[in-house]
Amino acid sequence: MSLVVQKYGGSSVADAASVKRVADRIALYAKAGHQVVVVVSAMGDTTDELIDLAEQVTATPPPRELDMLLTAGERISMAVLSMALNDLGVDARAYTGSQAGVITDEVHGKAHILKVTPGRIQDALDGGSVAIVAGFQGVSHTTKDITTLGRGGSDTTAVALAAALEADVCEIYSDVDGVFTADPRIVPAARRVPYISCEEMLELAANGAKILMGRSVEYARRHGVPLHVRSSFSGRIGTLVTDQADRLVPVDPDLTIPAAEVVHLDAGRPSKEDIVHSNREEGLEAPIISGVAHDSSEGKITVVEVPDIPGKAALLFDVVASSGANIDMIVQNSSTVDDTVAISLTLPEADAPAALAAIERARETIGYREVRYDDQIGKVSVVGAGMKSSPGVSATLFRCLGEAGINIDMISTSEIRISVVTDVHRLDDAVRVIHSAFGMDADQTEAVVYGGTGR
Amino acid sequence: MSLVVQKYGGSSVADAASVKRVADRIALYAKAGHQVVVVVSAMGDTTDELIDLAEQVTATPPPRELDMLLTAGERISMAVLSMALNDLGVDARAYTGSQAGVITDEVHGKAHILKVTPGRIQDALDGGSVAIVAGFQGVSHTTKDITTLGRGGSDTTAVALAAALEADVCEIYSDVDGVFTADPRIVPAARRVPYISCEEMLELAANGAKILMGRSVEYARRHGVPLHVRSSFSGRIGTLVTDQADRLVPVDPDLTIPAAEVVHLDAGRPSKEDIVHSNREEGLEAPIISGVAHDSSEGKITVVEVPDIPGKAALLFDVVASSGANIDMIVQNSSTVDDTVAISLTLPEADAPAALAAIERARETIGYREVRYDDQIGKVSVVGAGMKSSPGVSATLFRCLGEAGINIDMISTSEIRISVVTDVHRLDDAVRVIHSAFGMDADQTEAVVYGGTGR
Repeated sequence: MSLVVQKYGGSSVADAASVKRVADRIALYAKAGHQVVVVVSAMGDTTDELIDLAEQVTATPPPRELDMLLTAGERISMAVLSMALNDLGVDARAYTGSQAGVITDEVHGKAHILKVTPGRIQDALDGGSVAIVAGFQGVSHTTKDITTLGRGGSDTTAVALAAALEADVCEIYSDVDGVFTADPRIVPAARRVPYISCEEMLELAANGAKILMGRSVEYARRHGVPLHVRSSFSGRIGTLVTDQADRLVPVDPDLTIPAAEVVHLDAGRPSKEDIVHSNREEGLEAPIISGVAHDSSEGKITVVEVPDIPGKAALLFDVVASSGANIDMIVQNSSTVDDTVAISLTLPEADAPAALAAIERARETIGYREVRYDDQIGKVSVVGAGMKSSPGVSATLFRCLGEAGINIDMISTSEIRISVVTDVHRLDDAVRVIHSAFGMDADQTEAVVYGGTGR
Repeated sequence: MSLVVQKYGGSSVADAASVKRVADRIALYAKAGHQVVVVVSAMGDTTDELIDLAEQVTATPPPRELDMLLTAGERISMAVLSMALNDLGVDARAYTGSQAGVITDEVHGKAHILKVTPGRIQDALDGGSVAIVAGFQGVSHTTKDITTLGRGGSDTTAVALAAALEADVCEIYSDVDGVFTADPRIVPAARRVPYISCEEMLELAANGAKILMGRSVEYARRHGVPLHVRSSFSGRIGTLVTDQADRLVPVDPDLTIPAAEVVHLDAGRPSKEDIVHSNREEGLEAPIISGVAHDSSEGKITVVEVPDIPGKAALLFDVVASSGANIDMIVQNSSTVDDTVAISLTLPEADAPAALAAIERARETIGYREVRYDDQIGKVSVVGAGMKSSPGVSATLFRCLGEAGINIDMISTSEIRISVVTDVHRLDDAVRVIHSAFGMDADQTEAVVYGGTGR
């Protein structure tokens, strides 16, 4: 018997029929003897509809009241899911975040979980019930007010509950079959990754992969919770996200998905052997690259002719940071003609207006000549733990982009990632040529090219 | 400065525009210096929509989970109303029933309030905020689960909070201008009653008047809370329901309703003088009759040829009561031909199937010949404290119905009420002729007829 925490996103519970399908899946786990805790998001577009409603009465909803409003969404989905389970003969009980012991700070709209005291959830499990918990919400330890956790909050709720309950695995269900080597809508040949480390998943998430929010992966890494990313629409095996492959839960042979739901019957969870087999292709080491992520939601600010005097560049970054913007990449080019530099930085498009206004206000102090803004940029990133020891990665990357006639505008790197900025109109092409160049296309089982030099 | 509890029903907060109109009204009270607690129902048809959703996943929703689902409705309306108030510059905070200290028993779907500990509400008031409270809901003192109070629950929440906070008045807002002498949709000449005693209001509510649920009136009477029934769509003065006319709150001269909303500008609350003046027409005592109520939701079971032996009738009533039916009226007619009686009883149509089945199962024991059921009945009731000392009331009632050719099928009386059962197709006619015969029509300011005999 295992203790499994499952999280279902809004698309998995979009309507009554979807709720019943999810209930069927949960019932299989419960009837196989597992203890199950289910974390659920609001149904379909409910959250957006509630935000629309708020906007109809005020342009500036108080954050406390907005949290109270939005938490109604999960209240509905969890109660309906619990009813559907009871209808299948599975004893289930729904709990709000507060009832489940999700204790947060008092920052409405983006609260952080401080601790989880799941006494009532443990009691429900001990009593043989499936516990359904509202995702995305908690209660402030100081004000006792209801809080929400912000984007990706339901994933974080699930991971935090899994950690507090010492669950064997935390399954994250959405409408995607797992983590892919690239977005399958752009790269039809993209392959599912059966196993990925937390560090790689964090880099993918930070650079545009939407399957998991970085925050929940960080939490899982810190508490050693194995994450299993799966689709609620299929029986496929999904992707396991963990740094501790030896903590893998064995496949439960009794656990199969209803035949009607099976697209490709892998059944259950991947075993350690599955993963080792999948990750080590015949005669090859683990592949260098785990995936290609892309992001077209950033813009680029370029400040031209900044005096090349110590402290001026630092002042610019201070000004931008104090506007609340999250700076991603920075490139500084010295001019060979005069004593000035050009500084470019990328940031979320939503942060750009405030940042541009702040830079404008500091024009005199910084003493630059001109500011330009470009929202037509795209960022493509290759991520892989293997690149630490593979010097050829950047050469392969630059060569394949060059051969495709795609200009590289900016570059940034970490130990396990290289990101480049290109024209947004070439972003999809860039993702495809990179995916192919690193041998990740599904039909490229043999001739894997890791770069001309190195290895 | 007064402490006012206001309750707004679903029709008063049906959409964003309605919510804003209600917020305007609350803001007037708050800006006039009053402390205001607002109890709010779910917006428009939200509760019905949630029930529909539940029915899509199961025919038998567990009561605990259904309560969890339905309480999402008030969570939405209270948060949106709070936002609308903040948008008007009025500090407001929304609280669930649990947060407001509404402690109930554990009977899901029709919980009873055991006590109210409104510490957080008092704190909010002391801090200068308007407190918005979800109606219809509470938290069980034993299981800590969320409960709902059943039909009329929001009225009861408002009255219970008003009692616990020792409010000066509890204003019940709906889409009707107050308590009327009859349903204005049936009797266009019906008049608003400016003042009515709790006892009369209870009789009207129990006999079909839908403006207030009897349960909240009982609670108000027990705790001495003056109720003020008003419309959120007009500035009209409404109806005061209380046994203690000397506890009336004086009219606040600063309190007026926005000009655009005023249909008939009475302003504020009725003063004691207003009420005494309204109830005592020129040269007349208080009218005998407060109102005419009607109810077409009952059916009639007739059991024919019950042996006229002591205990057989009692057995029949035992059988019906144990089926869970609420018996309203009973008539027993002895046969002059044989030693049998016919027994008729009325009960809510919803209770009829179970009662009929129970009677059928007891056929042998009771020894009757036949059971008949008739759902084509209507009940009309005249209610008035004055009839205690006015013997002519029943004579007037029977005469006016006779003149209109309306047959009386059954009769029941209390100290301040006479009810008769008629063919449901003549029910509206019955209401109209009775309303007219007792001088309640709006154009009958003079010639009030209290019955040919008596007085």
